[in-house]
Amino acid sequence: MREVKAAVEGVSGFQVAGVHSGLKKNGALDFALIVSDRPCHAAGVFTRNEIKAACVLVDMQTLAENPRNIRAVAINTRCANACTGQQGIENAQEMARYTAEKLGYGAESILVLSTGVIGTQLPMQTIQHGIDLAVENLGNDWEATAHGIMTTDTRPKFASVEVQTAAGERYCIAGISKGAGMIAPNMATMLGIIVTDAACPQPYLQHALSSATEVSYNRIVVDGDMSTNDTVFLLANGASGVTLQTDADVEQFQQALEALCIKLAQDIVRDGEGVTKFVTIRVTGAPDDAAARQIANTIATSPLVKTAFYGNDANWGRIVAAAGRAGISLNQSCLKLWFSLSEDDLNPLQLIENGLPLHYSEAEATAIVRESAFTIVLDCGIGSGSAVVWTCDLSHDYVSINGDYRS
Amino acid sequence: MREVKAAVEGVSGFQVAGVHSGLKKNGALDFALIVSDRPCHAAGVFTRNEIKAACVLVDMQTLAENPRNIRAVAINTRCANACTGQQGIENAQEMARYTAEKLGYGAESILVLSTGVIGTQLPMQTIQHGIDLAVENLGNDWEATAHGIMTTDTRPKFASVEVQTAAGERYCIAGISKGAGMIAPNMATMLGIIVTDAACPQPYLQHALSSATEVSYNRIVVDGDMSTNDTVFLLANGASGVTLQTDADVEQFQQALEALCIKLAQDIVRDGEGVTKFVTIRVTGAPDDAAARQIANTIATSPLVKTAFYGNDANWGRIVAAAGRAGISLNQSCLKLWFSLSEDDLNPLQLIENGLPLHYSEAEATAIVRESAFTIVLDCGIGSGSAVVWTCDLSHDYVSINGDYRS
Repeated sequence: MREVKAAVEGVSGFQVAGVHSGLKKNGALDFALIVSDRPCHAAGVFTRNEIKAACVLVDMQTLAENPRNIRAVAINTRCANACTGQQGIENAQEMARYTAEKLGYGAESILVLSTGVIGTQLPMQTIQHGIDLAVENLGNDWEATAHGIMTTDTRPKFASVEVQTAAGERYCIAGISKGAGMIAPNMATMLGIIVTDAACPQPYLQHALSSATEVSYNRIVVDGDMSTNDTVFLLANGASGVTLQTDADVEQFQQALEALCIKLAQDIVRDGEGVTKFVTIRVTGAPDDAAARQIANTIATSPLVKTAFYGNDANWGRIVAAAGRAGISLNQSCLKLWFSLSEDDLNPLQLIENGLPLHYSEAEATAIVRESAFTIVLDCGIGSGSAVVWTCDLSHDYVSINGDYRS
Repeated sequence: MREVKAAVEGVSGFQVAGVHSGLKKNGALDFALIVSDRPCHAAGVFTRNEIKAACVLVDMQTLAENPRNIRAVAINTRCANACTGQQGIENAQEMARYTAEKLGYGAESILVLSTGVIGTQLPMQTIQHGIDLAVENLGNDWEATAHGIMTTDTRPKFASVEVQTAAGERYCIAGISKGAGMIAPNMATMLGIIVTDAACPQPYLQHALSSATEVSYNRIVVDGDMSTNDTVFLLANGASGVTLQTDADVEQFQQALEALCIKLAQDIVRDGEGVTKFVTIRVTGAPDDAAARQIANTIATSPLVKTAFYGNDANWGRIVAAAGRAGISLNQSCLKLWFSLSEDDLNPLQLIENGLPLHYSEAEATAIVRESAFTIVLDCGIGSGSAVVWTCDLSHDYVSINGDYRS
């Protein structure tokens, strides 16, 4: 496997476009389309929010009924099509139908995604204009396509990875994401669309995506809120001629997919609203992995911890106190805590041993949290469970971005 | 029952003091003492944080062994005595012992509370000086006593309620609180000390306090973090000559206690860090009360909801989306949502019906959330569970207060 790169080259049989349809008033790209020249096996993971957008409901049905003949994904910004009732469902279906008509496929082969304002109906004329323009402009511009799904994101997120199998064949996995932030006036969405030109049995594709999401998109915390629209798709069209058949092939694909999803997910945190710090939180020695994750998530969502990060404050008391309220039984006298500049740091700064502060250098600790990226390791000392999550600080800009009155 | 008033008069047999011991460098009151002239039945509720301060551990043992002979509560600020190991336990015990010696009682009759920095040991000389001064200054100044336990609080929180029984006898319940904010450099604490001059069987006292806490201190959300030191005590000394005996007496006491605790708890939210809005969130129609509370808490802790409040934004999409991620099964098409200026408003503004936005006046909705206090009612429409929580907005000042580097 090659490294994940921040570019998309060489994924066969897919064409893409990012266009300005008129949804955004400032002229920015606001609509995107990804099309395969042959049927794709497809898989999806969706928000666990009880309040699901119309597009999520429609796509869940499409994937349940037709997961082996998907042709395209159409994505609009500025309107989430959430809390829109039966009209919203019909608009999402019409968005798929119109895209299918323009491409010459069946409506059941089109997935649709929306991100933006909750509680308003899709402006269908503008959506149709976006589809028209996107179909006309299909090509290889993945950066524009990633631009076309942005809301409060400040930069496009796209990446790819090339894989060479044991047999010497090559295929590619590529993807775009948009961020977990807020769009004025409403909750935005985490979207990911991953494609590969390998061929892959559909049931495995769903398993691969669910597993990869679990260690990537589901490990990032910006503010702990969860959208009505969160969706990640994985489409496999087989255009490379490579079919994943052996256990080794499948294992290699899984590794590459996870690396790609982790890159795209981490990019979301790095570009989170008002973010000035990227923080890796690793919890070890927990009763089990789920407990470790619960503790890491509680630390990552704590406003006290996040404001301390923002303030360059090596405030281990807040970290320990957050861990203590995670709902997991802990033994205070077993806790250990380290700060370091990277996960690979062989000589991290230890702050806590047996639950008590060591005589560490406050200046050294502060120097670490002053950096734009650092790692915190909390060892609970009572088991073998571990987990990592990626998070950020809570800044004045976060409050400004999300406190601004809807315009 | 009379109304709860923001003053303490007429609680017999208790003497109090708030003094400047030298813990705070700015000369502010920083140490408090509450003493009964006769043995008290006592009850306590403590933080559920797995990381418990030394004073919490010591008090839990004291109350378990000697709940019918408590004489005093001593409280220091500036040092939480948390994450302090065996030395911290010994210091808390010594703080009790020294207080007992000065008052002429046994150490097992003294409760101790600390709030302030995590991870530093109590400065015992200053603590002893505080005890000396407080014992010398015992009197009736409840306002100074409430001042003496403040950290980032901007004003003291004290209140009382006078009760007249069916037999025409009178007694008083009084209390002080301090807020759920942060003290530089570390997590602060929610403390409440309630006293009454009624006599009450100890087991009922514990039940009464637990029940009252459940509908007051446990219903407030500032930032969702939980301290290592949170504690509420209830002491009953019987000095009024009134003994709670009949069911009616007990019921009346419970009502008065709950009203007092709700007042003190709401005062904490109103004086929360950076707070500009006091928001009541009522959830009805949930599967059960616990589910309603879970939904209300999720809304109350959502950074997206709280920043919208701060920005005068009637952003119902964020409220509905937060409800949807609370982990409770919902039916989107059954949701209703109202905004109003008070819980008693007979004509609230309805924004959502059957999960869809109504054609309400955005100006009218904005006018409500511009106020310094308002109420949100979410009806889930699927059951009979209900709950109320009190919360606040998330402001630039919250980030400033908690992002400041430790000084």
